Amino acid sequence: MNISDTLLLINDCIRSLKVYHLEPESCTVKLNQNENPFDWPEAVKAEIGRFCVERPWNRYPPFIPETLKDALAAYAGAHGSSVIVGNGSNEMLLVLFISLINKNGAVILCQPTFTVYRLLADGLGAKSVSVPLAPSLEYDIPAVIEAVKRNPAGVLVLCSPNNPTGSAVTEADLREILRYHTGFCVLDQAYVEFGGYNAVPLLREYPNLIITRTFSKAFSGAGLRIGYLLGTPAVVHEINNIKLPYNINFFSEKTALVLLKNLNVVRERLAIITEERDALFAFLRSLPFDKVYQSSANFILVRCREKGKLFDFLKKEGILVRDVSSYPMLENCLRISVGSSEENKALKKAIGLFFGA
Amino acid sequence: MNISDTLLLINDCIRSLKVYHLEPESCTVKLNQNENPFDWPEAVKAEIGRFCVERPWNRYPPFIPETLKDALAAYAGAHGSSVIVGNGSNEMLLVLFISLINKNGAVILCQPTFTVYRLLADGLGAKSVSVPLAPSLEYDIPAVIEAVKRNPAGVLVLCSPNNPTGSAVTEADLREILRYHTGFCVLDQAYVEFGGYNAVPLLREYPNLIITRTFSKAFSGAGLRIGYLLGTPAVVHEINNIKLPYNINFFSEKTALVLLKNLNVVRERLAIITEERDALFAFLRSLPFDKVYQSSANFILVRCREKGKLFDFLKKEGILVRDVSSYPMLENCLRISVGSSEENKALKKAIGLFFGA
Repeated sequence: MNISDTLLLINDCIRSLKVYHLEPESCTVKLNQNENPFDWPEAVKAEIGRFCVERPWNRYPPFIPETLKDALAAYAGAHGSSVIVGNGSNEMLLVLFISLINKNGAVILCQPTFTVYRLLADGLGAKSVSVPLAPSLEYDIPAVIEAVKRNPAGVLVLCSPNNPTGSAVTEADLREILRYHTGFCVLDQAYVEFGGYNAVPLLREYPNLIITRTFSKAFSGAGLRIGYLLGTPAVVHEINNIKLPYNINFFSEKTALVLLKNLNVVRERLAIITEERDALFAFLRSLPFDKVYQSSANFILVRCREKGKLFDFLKKEGILVRDVSSYPMLENCLRISVGSSEENKALKKAIGLFFGA
Repeated sequence: MNISDTLLLINDCIRSLKVYHLEPESCTVKLNQNENPFDWPEAVKAEIGRFCVERPWNRYPPFIPETLKDALAAYAGAHGSSVIVGNGSNEMLLVLFISLINKNGAVILCQPTFTVYRLLADGLGAKSVSVPLAPSLEYDIPAVIEAVKRNPAGVLVLCSPNNPTGSAVTEADLREILRYHTGFCVLDQAYVEFGGYNAVPLLREYPNLIITRTFSKAFSGAGLRIGYLLGTPAVVHEINNIKLPYNINFFSEKTALVLLKNLNVVRERLAIITEERDALFAFLRSLPFDKVYQSSANFILVRCREKGKLFDFLKKEGILVRDVSSYPMLENCLRISVGSSEENKALKKAIGLFFGA
């Protein structure tokens, strides 16, 4: 076997993938990954540090993390048997796509959105159907309904609040979509703690609805890689068949449990971040951007015909934002995460300077 | 949508999976999961405990864990670009199966073996072909070659040393198989530090060979969920396309790095465990088992017509072993992990009592 013949043995849909990649860049104010600007208090971290010393490393985690599943369910307002836990919501999305994409069904994506959905659909060889957002970058609900009618067994993926636009579906939108959709609807609510409708109550009514959530955003845990999904117990039971045994390590399991006991910390920070976001939004709206989009998440999308110059200017000032201009419909757009008060102050000062304000 | 219609939307191959499941059982001597009996020294654990306090939890891990990949490569005797790191070798197996199983190709499994291969093949809707081991429970190399000739694009999975039999392929066996096989060969070497041929040198000659390895066994890290794969860089580059971004958390990344700096600890324990295994083997051989199988791993397979009674007797004595009698060819078989000297002493005493020795 030579290398070129060997490469041909790899699935076409894997070889043709355009991979998600992020170049590491150094900066003092990091507003490019929608991370939470607040780390956890040292006392909480120290509790986990001690646990890492006490807990035997040589023993497997429990086969099913029951206590964590119950704690997540209690937090989310669901039942423990509605929960699967994984390494970030990414793992949950992979497990869902493997379980739900039928040979003849498409994945329906509302673009622009989080790039991992398309990566997974393509990698698994699924057909994907794109429904553009409205020109306002809000969800185009009639177009979504049209698409689900044409793809009755399709897996509809909605991200609400949507990354990178910040737009969210309402309860009425979801009910209207689910009234027509006969396939599964995977609703990624990674940012839901920052705003937008929390769809957990709908799980009881719609067994074809599955929600994914994460500890990376509101829970200040991007480094922890903890995500989970919520669904109807009978559906979750089947999806659990393909979840890898022992998928999360003892560190993730224990940390998630401890963080769920410190919800007051999460809530205090959420209040600060959403207040900062609203103030940043008002500030950005006062400047000559082509458009500043309202956001229900912890980031704000702006359109600016000088986006390249603005990006470079901010970078020179030590502030890193995300250039999302290569996404469909997002020509000249930058996505700016909401940082701490100090970070946002530095950002506002730099943007003010850029526009000569 | 009602629940029964919704369940029908889930892929047939997921709904029909017979899931891998392990009931939690309490015991004082745990010899049922091939764990390493030794935990890491407190100084090593404390280093990680401190890191967990220092490292910001709210920030994503690096996009590519370059330092860890290089350290793993240095340990394994390969190049950094030959490595992908994941949550246990399970995640690597999933990524490999998604990448390598073609629509028309089968997965070729030598049975009995680790159950996750079949679970993943079935869950992904792949056809699987079983090649029975020889009656000695050694690999039947002519039968493997026959199978790869009949399935030239198939993905051959070999586990060496094999779980749960302990049998291993030799270098000559592998070369003979790879001389004929035109598809990929996934070689799971989770137990290779305990014995059997380490196939890393063959990677340079056979681009269709991919090796998976783990920190769960020789590295005393079953609770950490760290695994990796090694392959030809051009092949690894393609497979990396479907690996999830940010799949391992900062804890796993840092811990793996620190453990690789403490190889002396790993090697000291390996010497103890293999010595204990050989002594246990000699002891078991002296008893009226129907068969005690030679093992290159950290466990020993025994066949005993009174296996149910023996299992229960050991359990009453606080010793948990694994009943593997439902595996193909393993009627009346138990798999016994090699524990610490004290644990093996307790085991020997109990087995001696059982046989009235």
